[in-house]
Amino acid sequence: MRINAKVISIGDELLIGQIINSNSSFIAEKLYSAGIPVKRIVTIGDTEKELLDELTDSLKNFNVTVITGGLGPTHDDITKPVLMKFFKDKPVLNKKVLNKVKSLFKSRNQVMPEVNTGQAMIPSKSEVIWNDNGTAPGIWINNNNKIFIALPGVPYEMKPMITEIVLPKLSNLFKNKNEYTFLSKTILTTGISESDLYEKLGDINEIIGKHKLAFLPSAELVKLRIDVTAKSKKEALLSYKKIEKKILDKAGNFVFGYEDDKLEKVLGELLKKKKKTLAVAESCTGGLISAKIVDIPGSSDYFLGGVCAYANDAKKKLLDVKNNSLKKFGAVSEQVAIEMAEGVRKKFKSDYAISTTGIAGPTGGSKVKPVGLVYIGFSDKNKSYALKFNLGDTRMKVITRATISALNLLRKEVLKNNS
Amino acid sequence: MRINAKVISIGDELLIGQIINSNSSFIAEKLYSAGIPVKRIVTIGDTEKELLDELTDSLKNFNVTVITGGLGPTHDDITKPVLMKFFKDKPVLNKKVLNKVKSLFKSRNQVMPEVNTGQAMIPSKSEVIWNDNGTAPGIWINNNNKIFIALPGVPYEMKPMITEIVLPKLSNLFKNKNEYTFLSKTILTTGISESDLYEKLGDINEIIGKHKLAFLPSAELVKLRIDVTAKSKKEALLSYKKIEKKILDKAGNFVFGYEDDKLEKVLGELLKKKKKTLAVAESCTGGLISAKIVDIPGSSDYFLGGVCAYANDAKKKLLDVKNNSLKKFGAVSEQVAIEMAEGVRKKFKSDYAISTTGIAGPTGGSKVKPVGLVYIGFSDKNKSYALKFNLGDTRMKVITRATISALNLLRKEVLKNNS
Repeated sequence: MRINAKVISIGDELLIGQIINSNSSFIAEKLYSAGIPVKRIVTIGDTEKELLDELTDSLKNFNVTVITGGLGPTHDDITKPVLMKFFKDKPVLNKKVLNKVKSLFKSRNQVMPEVNTGQAMIPSKSEVIWNDNGTAPGIWINNNNKIFIALPGVPYEMKPMITEIVLPKLSNLFKNKNEYTFLSKTILTTGISESDLYEKLGDINEIIGKHKLAFLPSAELVKLRIDVTAKSKKEALLSYKKIEKKILDKAGNFVFGYEDDKLEKVLGELLKKKKKTLAVAESCTGGLISAKIVDIPGSSDYFLGGVCAYANDAKKKLLDVKNNSLKKFGAVSEQVAIEMAEGVRKKFKSDYAISTTGIAGPTGGSKVKPVGLVYIGFSDKNKSYALKFNLGDTRMKVITRATISALNLLRKEVLKNNS
Repeated sequence: MRINAKVISIGDELLIGQIINSNSSFIAEKLYSAGIPVKRIVTIGDTEKELLDELTDSLKNFNVTVITGGLGPTHDDITKPVLMKFFKDKPVLNKKVLNKVKSLFKSRNQVMPEVNTGQAMIPSKSEVIWNDNGTAPGIWINNNNKIFIALPGVPYEMKPMITEIVLPKLSNLFKNKNEYTFLSKTILTTGISESDLYEKLGDINEIIGKHKLAFLPSAELVKLRIDVTAKSKKEALLSYKKIEKKILDKAGNFVFGYEDDKLEKVLGELLKKKKKTLAVAESCTGGLISAKIVDIPGSSDYFLGGVCAYANDAKKKLLDVKNNSLKKFGAVSEQVAIEMAEGVRKKFKSDYAISTTGIAGPTGGSKVKPVGLVYIGFSDKNKSYALKFNLGDTRMKVITRATISALNLLRKEVLKNNS
C-alpha cells in the first residue's frame, strides 16, 4: 500500500494572488519526508460547495487530507461548519480550549471578545490539535482511517502544529503500512554559487546513484536536498550517509549546517562553546546582523550589542572612526570597515567584532564604487582586517548577502581559533 | 455571464515542496485585475491521467484555463501530448518556432540538441504564444470559446507571456461579455487584534452589503480586504469609497496604510515630509527596528542610526542609562526605556528617538516581569515617555510585535507634531 495525501488551501486572498501559498509547500515537504507524498494541492475560495466537493474527492482518493485556513473567529471562516456538515457532526464546547483562549487574551491584558467562544466549539467526532501560538485549535478527524486535518492558515501557528503533532500522529498511524521508506535530508552551504557548487561536486550520478539530489538556491545560501528511497530505514540511512560523505569530501568547506539550521544559530553555539563574546558595527546592513543574532534564544550569553552607524557622524562619535579615514577613503572602504570593527570591539569590550559598510542601492553607486560593493570587517585581540565583496544589484540582495557573508566570515574565524 | 478561470500547475517539484508555487499567485493576480477571477488553483504531478481529469473539469466549469509547466523537451513534459490527446489533435511542425529555437542555441554558441525539435511541434488546432525568453513556446487553444493556455513553468519566461500576450488576447475576447467589474482593495491596520477589530467594526453586513470583507491577520498586522463587484468601474469605486469611510469611522485609529504599504515606509515618508531625523535604541528587538527602517530605499535621508544595547554595560556606556536606574528598576522598566530613548537621541542629535526593552523569552521571565513584557520609549525635544506592552509568549512574536508597536507609536507622534 502506498499512502498518499492532498493539501487544500482555503482563502480568497490566495485566489486573487494577494498571498503566495507557501503553506502548502511547507506541508508537502514535511509529509513527503515522512513517507506520505502529496499528490495534489488545491486552492479554493471561502465557499461551502467547493470545499464539500473537495472533501468528497478526498474521502474517495486520499489517505490524508490537510486543510489550511478558514479556522478563524469571523464570518468568512468556513472550515469547521463545512467539515461538520460533511461528516454529519455537531459542535461541542471544549472547555480546555476555551480556557486556553481566555488565558491567552488575559496574558495580553485583554478580555476575550465574545466571538472567540466559537473557536472552542469542536466537532464531536474530532480530536483537538493544540495550537500553542494562536487562538484557533486544529482539528483531527479519523474517518475509517481516512484522515482529515484542519489547521489555521497563519504560518507560524500552522508550522509547529505540523511538525510537533501531525507528523508524529501520522507516522504512528501508518507505521508498517508503507512498503517504502523515504528519507529526505538537507545539507546547507553558503559562500558559493549554485553553479560553482555543481562543478565542485563533479559527476552527480556517481554521488547519488538511484537517489535524488536537488539544488535549492536562494539569495543567501544553496541547499542540497538528498532524497533517498529504500526498503528499510536502516538501508535509507546508510545510503544517505554514503552520499553525505561524498558531498563533504568535495565541498565540505562551504557546508555550515543541516536541515533548518540557521547560520546565526550555528555561530551562536560555537561562541557559547568557546565562551567568547561578540559586538557588531553595521552600516549598509542596518541592524540586520544584530537582529538575526538576537533571533536566537539565549543569544544574550554571547552577544553584547551593536551600533548601527548609518550616518558618518555616528561612525565617528559612536565607533571612533577617524575623520581622516572617512575623508581620505570614503565611508565605504577597507579602512573604515576595519576601524568600525575595532571601534565596536573596544566600546563593548567584546572578544570578536564584525562590521559592514557598503552601497546597498538603488542610489549612491558610482563607477568606482558601484551598488553591491561591501566591505566586511573583522577584529579580535590579535588582528583586524576587512574583505571586499560584490554582492548583487538590488538592495534586498546586497543587505541579505552582506549579512550572511559577515556571519560566515566570523564563523570561520571562530572555528580557526583554539584559544 | 460571469467569466471565471482555473490555474493548473504541473510539476513533481511543486508536490514535494521543493519550489513554492509563486507562478499561480502571479497569474491569479493578473487575471483577477483583468476581470477574470481565478476560482481554483490546482497543482498536480507529471502524470497524464490527472491532467486529463483536470481538462475535463475545465471544459465543463471554466471559461479560461491556464496551465504552467510540462512544456520542456524531455520525457516528463506531458502538457502538449495530453492536450492533443484530450482535443483529439495532431502535432504539426512550426518552422518559425524551429528557427527561433535554433537561433537561440546558436546565440549561445551551441548546436541545438535533436530533442529540442519537439518544441517546435505544435497542436494543429492551436496558436503559438511567443516566448521571448526561452525555447518552449506557449500554446493557445480556443475550443468553442473555452480557452486553454499552456505556458512554460520558468517564471521569467511565463510572466511576460501573460502580461504582453495572454491578457490582451483575453480582454479582447471577453470584451463586453463580462457584465461585472471587480475591485479589490486592502486596508492595513496595526495595534489591534483580529477579534477586537471585528468587534469594533460591529455589524459587518451593514458595512459591506453584498460585497466581501476578509480579515487577514499576521503577527504584526491585520489586513482588511474589500472585494467589490459592480456593473461598472465607477459604481465599484463608489461602493468601495462608502465601505472605506465606514471602516475609517469605526477603526481609523488603527489604519496606517493601504495595499502593500509597509509601516516603515509610511513612517519614512512622514519623516521625509516633515524633514525630521530618527535614531533608535534597541534591547529586546535586537536591531530589527533599525533593519526594517534601512530596508526602505532612501532611508539615509532621515535615519541616523541606532544602538543595539543588549548588555547592561552597553546601555550605560553607549546610551548613558544611569547605573542607579538599572539597579533600582531593572533593565526592563519604564525608566530605562525613557533613558535609552533620551540617550540615543542626544548621541545621534536626532529629532526623534524610540527605544525598546523587554523580555523576549523563552527564558528570563518572572512573575512580576513575564515573557512578553516590553517597554517602548519615545523622546523628542519636548517630551520623553515609555509605554508598557504585553506582546505574547514566543520570542518571534514578542520581537516582531515590539518592532511594529514602536514604529507605530512613532508614526502617531510624528503625525501629531505640526512643528
